[in-house]
Amino acid sequence: MIILGIDPGLATTGYGVIKEEGEALESLGYGCIKTKAGVEKTRRYCEIFDGIMEIMREFKPDILAVESLFFNKNTKTALMVGASLGIIFLAAGKFGIPLVEYTPLQVKECLTGFGRAKKNQIREIVQIELELEKPPTPIDASDALAIALCHYHLDEMDE
Amino acid sequence: MIILGIDPGLATTGYGVIKEEGEALESLGYGCIKTKAGVEKTRRYCEIFDGIMEIMREFKPDILAVESLFFNKNTKTALMVGASLGIIFLAAGKFGIPLVEYTPLQVKECLTGFGRAKKNQIREIVQIELELEKPPTPIDASDALAIALCHYHLDEMDE
Repeated sequence: MIILGIDPGLATTGYGVIKEEGEALESLGYGCIKTKAGVEKTRRYCEIFDGIMEIMREFKPDILAVESLFFNKNTKTALMVGASLGIIFLAAGKFGIPLVEYTPLQVKECLTGFGRAKKNQIREIVQIELELEKPPTPIDASDALAIALCHYHLDEMDE
Repeated sequence: MIILGIDPGLATTGYGVIKEEGEALESLGYGCIKTKAGVEKTRRYCEIFDGIMEIMREFKPDILAVESLFFNKNTKTALMVGASLGIIFLAAGKFGIPLVEYTPLQVKECLTGFGRAKKNQIREIVQIELELEKPPTPIDASDALAIALCHYHLDEMDE
């Protein structure tokens, strides 16, 4: 089972790919898609979409797990995150794989058992769980790996 | 100048295409893309994206005008509208045309001079301005034509 985790955003979209095989769990790759602030939004969303499609063609994930904020006081933030989410839903649809959504709280609680965990604490756990030589950077990529790990654990519990 | 107006939504995406040539203004077509509630969201966003791309290939618009809500108390609504908006931004980018955003208030004020105008009042004005034989239906298509008309008027004022 290959899981692609995505932390959506307009400026930075983090991604992380993990592979589960029997008892083994490893990171296949991680990084981020960056778009520039001065560029037209229509162009920036194309770059995000094309970037995600390229990542899916490279890693052939079986499922896409995305961080979605369900509650946020700022409507404008929700609208912007929503736009990135729409692109990700479309990419999963075009690639023909299912998509699952997790809230930041679910990811934190799943990985640390603690809803108020800091990003650096999450990153440490990601590094340990995936036996990475160094902490994954940038932080958006670490968050994306955390989302993929969250799906791995919660999906395992369902079985 | 051909303007494609879009009223975004997950269940119903209204569209309306108007053409301005010298003093003449006409509707080239309108309607809506509907997606079913029971279907996976990844599939529904694919249907919206493919539908918009098909409309653009048919009518070859020079610009896409979209209704965007900038302020709404409901974050969940903002997130959902945002997802549809993201798809529309991407479609404009893929087709290589600019996109302009108008709020519902701007559209109402532009067409009726009155921010609290009802959808039926807007529809009447759309019918009169475009010399349509009957009121455009469904209401989402009428709204989309109104957005295209709003761009036509505001763009004219800029010149």
